[in-house]
This record gives sequence, structure tokens and C-alpha cells, in this order.
Amino acid sequence: MSTFNVELKRVVDDSYEIEIGFGLQEKLLTDIQNGLVGNITKFAVITDSIVKDLYTENILNMLKNAGYQADMFVFEAGETSKTRATKEYIEDSMLEKGYRRDCCIIAVGGGVVTDLAGFVAGTYGRGVPFINYATTLLAAADASVGGKTAVDTPLATNLIGLFNQPEKVYIDIAAWKTLPERQVYSGLAETIKHACIASEELFDYLDAHIDEILGIDKNACEYIANENCRIKYEVVMKDERESGLREILNLGHTAGRAIETVSGYRLLHGEAVSIGLVAEVKLAYKLGYVTAAQRDKVIELLKKACLPVEIPDYIDREALVKKLYTDKKVRNGQLRFVIQKGIGDVVEFENGVFAVKIDEDTAREIIMDM
Amino acid sequence: MSTFNVELKRVVDDSYEIEIGFGLQEKLLTDIQNGLVGNITKFAVITDSIVKDLYTENILNMLKNAGYQADMFVFEAGETSKTRATKEYIEDSMLEKGYRRDCCIIAVGGGVVTDLAGFVAGTYGRGVPFINYATTLLAAADASVGGKTAVDTPLATNLIGLFNQPEKVYIDIAAWKTLPERQVYSGLAETIKHACIASEELFDYLDAHIDEILGIDKNACEYIANENCRIKYEVVMKDERESGLREILNLGHTAGRAIETVSGYRLLHGEAVSIGLVAEVKLAYKLGYVTAAQRDKVIELLKKACLPVEIPDYIDREALVKKLYTDKKVRNGQLRFVIQKGIGDVVEFENGVFAVKIDEDTAREIIMDM
Repeated sequence: MSTFNVELKRVVDDSYEIEIGFGLQEKLLTDIQNGLVGNITKFAVITDSIVKDLYTENILNMLKNAGYQADMFVFEAGETSKTRATKEYIEDSMLEKGYRRDCCIIAVGGGVVTDLAGFVAGTYGRGVPFINYATTLLAAADASVGGKTAVDTPLATNLIGLFNQPEKVYIDIAAWKTLPERQVYSGLAETIKHACIASEELFDYLDAHIDEILGIDKNACEYIANENCRIKYEVVMKDERESGLREILNLGHTAGRAIETVSGYRLLHGEAVSIGLVAEVKLAYKLGYVTAAQRDKVIELLKKACLPVEIPDYIDREALVKKLYTDKKVRNGQLRFVIQKGIGDVVEFENGVFAVKIDEDTAREIIMDM
Repeated sequence: MSTFNVELKRVVDDSYEIEIGFGLQEKLLTDIQNGLVGNITKFAVITDSIVKDLYTENILNMLKNAGYQADMFVFEAGETSKTRATKEYIEDSMLEKGYRRDCCIIAVGGGVVTDLAGFVAGTYGRGVPFINYATTLLAAADASVGGKTAVDTPLATNLIGLFNQPEKVYIDIAAWKTLPERQVYSGLAETIKHACIASEELFDYLDAHIDEILGIDKNACEYIANENCRIKYEVVMKDERESGLREILNLGHTAGRAIETVSGYRLLHGEAVSIGLVAEVKLAYKLGYVTAAQRDKVIELLKKACLPVEIPDYIDREALVKKLYTDKKVRNGQLRFVIQKGIGDVVEFENGVFAVKIDEDTAREIIMDM
């Protein structure tokens, strides 16, 4: 018997820049020309059927006119496309077009596109660089920081994927103007969540400037895009592998994801999260961690953002309670929630533990009341 | 316009141990009990239809008897199973059995099993730890060092995958006794390749001890398993991302892989590599980098290892020349070969460049002569 040691200790630098602005296509091209991805001249541009005409054609032509090889790979817009089959389809299309290891992937779209394209990039040729060009507020609030990429399977959401950091992220606020209103509102739910867990200042800003934000005012949107990045970054930074602190990003999501599923996806993710935030701020109130005034302020802000704050009538409350148990924070059959503490903070249950055990009756009571 | 910097510079330690011995199942269990993978108690054991009965059942029962949760996930043995479909099948089976992020994957088998299982581990729950229990000489020679995992697609071999390092590798020489003879010989081709590129000492050892090795003598096999690891490690270490030096591991593979494909996989990988090594040592002789005596020594050793040294009659030579162009070292339509220099060294064409341009006529001449 003998042993052989493979020493693989090394410094990895996955740092990247997020650029936030109004109309960033030209900047993307300039960055590439200035060596953002080294000498790469082949670009596989991945996008969905909606964003394609709005943005991606333009980016594609720009790249081609600048002398690069660029092809577009389009899949049907929507969460239901986030599958292994779509990944396979994109891979095969890229192979057919002759893309090998010396290419760069550019994702143009919202969270579904950046999640899927980042995953494709992570396994294509055992990893090629990728750039995210985020066109939605939700992508700006959620998908730009953290490096999570994944697809869904019939049995699990986001379970097959990998951590993969982009070369750069562009958050183009101009693109938000082309979003359906419901998508804009939905995207705001994650921003309000960030305010609730980490920044009373952001909360107050949202409260005071909600009309400008809904009107896609450049400065107001730039401010909130920045704050989204900052808060998520600070949380994720301290906890890259999702052990403890990162769970606080789940505020509103324990109830929210259950509502989203039980609604049969009639509710958008952000809409379900909004209702989840209401349920969970009520829970925090019940446990004495927020005052009645704070609770009402949260509910009012969600309303001002045109988000739903009540569980729709068509949702079966008992099915919803049952669905709570599929949450990934559940351990040994015990429900666990992140609990808001005032506005801009969360309860640290014990050192490094932010998900608090809640008995089913307490959870049921909140839900039955909404 | 504003920018936000995500700083992700960190030290990553992917070091692991390779244990080489005769019957290592008990050692695997002891290591797990001693915390090899921390507190994990759930083990997904991935294997193929041949190894299943020979080894994996035993390992599975051992884990269960020790109180761990363990399930076996079996796919049809053979290179044709190394697909995205098999990966998907394993993932869905694991999900069905309730495996989440808190599990460890154990791969039991040869290169196909470890390649596939390592890839599954890399994307399951965005990455779970995995252990390789290698049962073939080929896995010992090739798959234990380097961290390459992948699947094949209709359009490309090994192009979809990732770099993923195991927690530990076990090379069980006792398992080689259960291999069909042809598999043992085939595995030796990579070992002889390692000797040709990096160690005249290993070459001489193989030459002197070939009978013991073919008889799976414990000490002789342990020695060559160790040498395989050492040589591959030294090459890979210096070039983790396969830019330059790592290409030297391609000796015999430019011709070899083409022969393998044109044979319609009638030849095993190692058999094709053996013929490739002959073709390429003849090329090196033609270019003046090996003497006639050295060339003949290489051919003789391959023969002693019961490996083929001639291109079979059923292979269309012109198709073979054409196939050379699908090699991944081809650049701008120009064939490139790694050239052996004496025994135990390769030609460094220029600083850091080990793949030498060879014109088609020269390559054709060698092939037509064999």
C-alpha cells in the first residue's frame, strides 16, 4: 500500500465588475475590444425569444460589424425553459456552428437566461468565459451577484448547476423600459427584501422615490441597482457556499416559493415573494421582532410597488402549509424561517444561525389569517 | 453610469490523496468513518453494469452495515454510456431517492465511471464531494490525476464537462485481476506512453518486468501505478488548464484517436494508442529525434505488452489521414504532433510549444507504410 499526494492549493481570482447604466451595448463592445476576455474572437450569444428582437439582434450585429464571429442561440422565454433539454439544445447548436473552447458566451436577458447561459459556459469545453448583459430588474436584484447558475428538473428547482462567476455584468436600466409593468413590479420585490434584511436607508429611499422608480427614472434606478448589488454582495461575500448567513436572502421566500408553486406559477416569482414578505413580517410581528408600525410600513411599500399583499382566494391554504415543508431550510422535518428584526436587520438565532425553527401551528395561523 | 466591484480572490485547496494498494474497500470505509468527507452520512454509489457485481455490491453493503445511507446507481458499461442522457438518468434517480446537497458520490469503476460520476458530482446541488474507487489500470494510468470529467455528445468527445477534483482516489490493484486480459493490455498503453514522454527508467522497468505486470504482481503493479500518477501529476501540475505542456500527454493520441474512430471502436482506446505510439515513434525517427534502436525498443515493448503495433487491414488509410484533422491540436488547418525525443523526453519546439507542425505528406507516408 502506498499513497501519492496531489497538491492543488492555489489562489483563484474570480473578481469581476458590474457596470450599471442606461444603454450599455456600446460599452460592452468597447470592453471586448479592450481585452475584457483576452484575445477571444468568437462569441456565442444566448438569449430568449422575447429579448431577441428587443436587444440581442442589436448586440449581435454590433459584434459582427466589429469583425467578430458571433451567433445567436435562442430559446423560448420563460422559467419552463430552464431545463437540461434547453442546455443540451444550446450545446448541440454551438457545436454545430463550430464553437470550441476558444469562445466566450454572452447572456442577454433576465434571470432565466443568465442562469442557463452561465451553466452552459461552466461545462462547455470544461469551462469558457461568459458575460452577463442583464435586461431585467430581477436579474439586477438577484442574478448579478453570487455566481449561482442552474436548471430545473421535474423533481427539483435549481438543483442541477454550478457556481460560476462571469467576466463582467452589465445592468442596462434602459432595458427595463421595455419590460411589461408586471415584470418591473415583480423585480422590485427582491429589492424591497434587500431593504428589509439589510438597509433601513434603502427602505426609506424606496418609500420616498417609488414613483420615480416605477417610471424608470435613470438616477433612482441606478441607485437601487447599486444597492441591490452592494447588499447581496456583502451577504454572499461572507458566505460563498451558502452555509449560514446567506440564508437571510431567503426572507419572504419560505412562504413565497410555496405560494408560487401552489399557485401553479400564475403568480410571478416576485409577486409570490411579496406575499411571502407580508406573511413573514406578520410572523416577525407575532414573535415580537417588529412593531405594528414597522409591519404596516412593509406592507404599504409593497402595495405602493403594485405588488400583491394577500394570498389569492384560489390558493388552498392547507396545501400551502404542506408545501412549506419542501423548503430547503427544513431540517429533520422542522420548518425554519428567516425572521426580520425591525427594518433593515434580521434575527441571529444563535451564532451564525439565521433560520429560526417555527412550529407548524404558528405558520398555519399566519397563513389562515391572510 | 456606475460600477460595482465584486472581489472574489481566494485560496482554493483541492489537494487530495491517491491510495494505491491491493484490496482497498476496508480502507475506504475506515477513511469515511475517520471524516474523509466530514459529517456526510449519505452516499450515492455510481457504477456500471459490469463492475456492479464484482465490486460495488460489496462496497455498498459495507457502507450500509456501518450505518450509512447508501444507494447504488448503475448504468450500462461502455464508452457509449458516457452521455448527457446517462447523467440525467443518474441525477433523476438520485433526486427520487431523496439525495440533496448533503451527500457524497462514490464512483466505482474505470475511466467511464469516474469521468461521468465526477461530472455528476460537479453539478449536483451545485457541487457535492466525490470519491473515486478506480478498478482498472486505465483509470489508474489516466483518470486519477488531472480532474477532467466529461461526457460525449454526437458531435464531440469529452467536450461537455468540467474540472473537478475528488476528495480521494483509491487505485485497487486487486481489481485488475478481474479485468479481461485485453483491458489490462489496453491500460498498459498509457503507461508505456508515460514512460516514452518522461521516464527512461520506467521504460526499462516495464521492459524488464512485463511478465510480472501482466500477471498482476502486486509490487510491480504498485510501482507502475505510482509512476503513472507521478508523471501525469508533474505534467498536469505545471499546466492545469491545458495550455502547452499538457499536450505532451497526447503522444500517440493524434494518430491513436483517429485510428480508434476509423476502426468504428473495434479497437479499444489503449490498442489504438499503441498503434498511434508506433506511428509517432516512426515519425520521430524520420525527423531524427529517435534512433532506429530506440524506435524498435518502443515497438518491442508494446508487442511484449500484447498490444497491436500495426494498423489493421480493415482500416482505410486515406480516411485515417483525413480523420487526423479532427484532432484538437489542429490549428488553422495544420496538423500538429507531439514528437518523442529519445526515450523519456519530448521535443520542445519553441518555448512552451510541444506540438510540432507536420505536413500531410509526411503523416501520410508513415501511415501508408504501416
